Amino acid sequence: MQRYFLDDPHQTGDHLVLPETIARHWIRVMRAQIGDQAEFVDSTAHLFVGSLTVMEPEATVTLTAVPTPEVELPVAVTIACGLPKQEKSEWITQKATELGVTNIVFYAADWSVAKWQGNKAGKKVARLNKIAAAAAEQSHRLHRPEVSYAASLADVLKQPVDVRLMAYEESAKQGEQSALNQQLTALRPGQTLLTIFGPEGGISPAEVEQATAAQTTLVGLGPRILRTETAPLYLLAATSMVLELQTPR
Amino acid sequence: MQRYFLDDPHQTGDHLVLPETIARHWIRVMRAQIGDQAEFVDSTAHLFVGSLTVMEPEATVTLTAVPTPEVELPVAVTIACGLPKQEKSEWITQKATELGVTNIVFYAADWSVAKWQGNKAGKKVARLNKIAAAAAEQSHRLHRPEVSYAASLADVLKQPVDVRLMAYEESAKQGEQSALNQQLTALRPGQTLLTIFGPEGGISPAEVEQATAAQTTLVGLGPRILRTETAPLYLLAATSMVLELQTPR
Repeated sequence: MQRYFLDDPHQTGDHLVLPETIARHWIRVMRAQIGDQAEFVDSTAHLFVGSLTVMEPEATVTLTAVPTPEVELPVAVTIACGLPKQEKSEWITQKATELGVTNIVFYAADWSVAKWQGNKAGKKVARLNKIAAAAAEQSHRLHRPEVSYAASLADVLKQPVDVRLMAYEESAKQGEQSALNQQLTALRPGQTLLTIFGPEGGISPAEVEQATAAQTTLVGLGPRILRTETAPLYLLAATSMVLELQTPR
Repeated sequence: MQRYFLDDPHQTGDHLVLPETIARHWIRVMRAQIGDQAEFVDSTAHLFVGSLTVMEPEATVTLTAVPTPEVELPVAVTIACGLPKQEKSEWITQKATELGVTNIVFYAADWSVAKWQGNKAGKKVARLNKIAAAAAEQSHRLHRPEVSYAASLADVLKQPVDVRLMAYEESAKQGEQSALNQQLTALRPGQTLLTIFGPEGGISPAEVEQATAAQTTLVGLGPRILRTETAPLYLLAATSMVLELQTPR
């Protein structure tokens, strides 16, 4: 069933005039008819089935609350990615959303070749938030990840979180294999995890120093060298494996 | 250091005339000079450092054996992917190679919209093998994954393997959470694992039946719905987590 996000809280019996973007997609693109149903997630992450009761002049649904399945990771994971080249930010956003990320920050890393200056950052971020919302609908999430831009790693490190990790290629090369598992298995439901990834050129020594000064643990992601856009997906899948498939709720 | 694969076995002291494709990349693209070094993996997966000793008329390196690090997954993982749309096969190949896959089979699934008929399959497979080899060099693998085409799931199931899994969305929806972990933790080094993924449209009931008749275990990949190109990456990262980061060698 098609799924859409709503910006307000709702309850059973609500007659909701659909926001224009949802009405356009569901009725014009998906050709919904009177009586058709879709899933709606309200602003408090509760799930409803909505039946299309009125098409004109304004598309309107009647909402019925249904049991909300547990589909979110038990911890809130933020990935901070050094600005990557080309369209990689788009597919990191799409794939990380499918894999359960809560927040994505693209930061201007010391060794980022790409630059998002002035206007560009705002436009990029707006576009990436749309991609995240669409991917969240497709993967039947209850949460739309928020995508943002940071001018430096220092800004990223200012955010308060429970645990900070940095994916560090040198850890992988040196055969470090247990830090990630130790960190993930120690997490408790509801905690917040920030994981930092470098851009194509890697993480600068100054950035490693800043991060470790801010209680960040360096972790390897296995013995192979992963590209900048692949490493966050490894982290998210590993988090799901440890906290969802190995830890019964 | 740049890494290249060789098609024969070698030993320290070998003077090797570089194959044309390597010479072209290393000397013309990467601008290597006399005395420069690159890593070479021979056909028996042993690692060498090669120094460029002659440029003309034929680029020649002198090889020295170096310790070969363990960078391959302890089990040989084959992923069988229902033919996906557009260029998704290319990026599944690139990303799965980074994540340690041994073999990739694209099979014409009952519900595949894409078709690789006649000539197209051969051309696609040749191109995908080049992508796999390049990604294996970049991620510093010792093994170039082999990409092939199968006309049906039945052909995929004929391959002898130790363990067969099928990623099944319905398992995820029903909250099945432990089968993948049970299967992965039971694997022993050197075993072979086949995991089957459907195309965008999913796996047909007939295919589920064929697979289960061939001792295939249905597994969920966490509670979120993953796209056809994302599911194999989850499986490979989870395999690495369990067999590399949670199981010291």
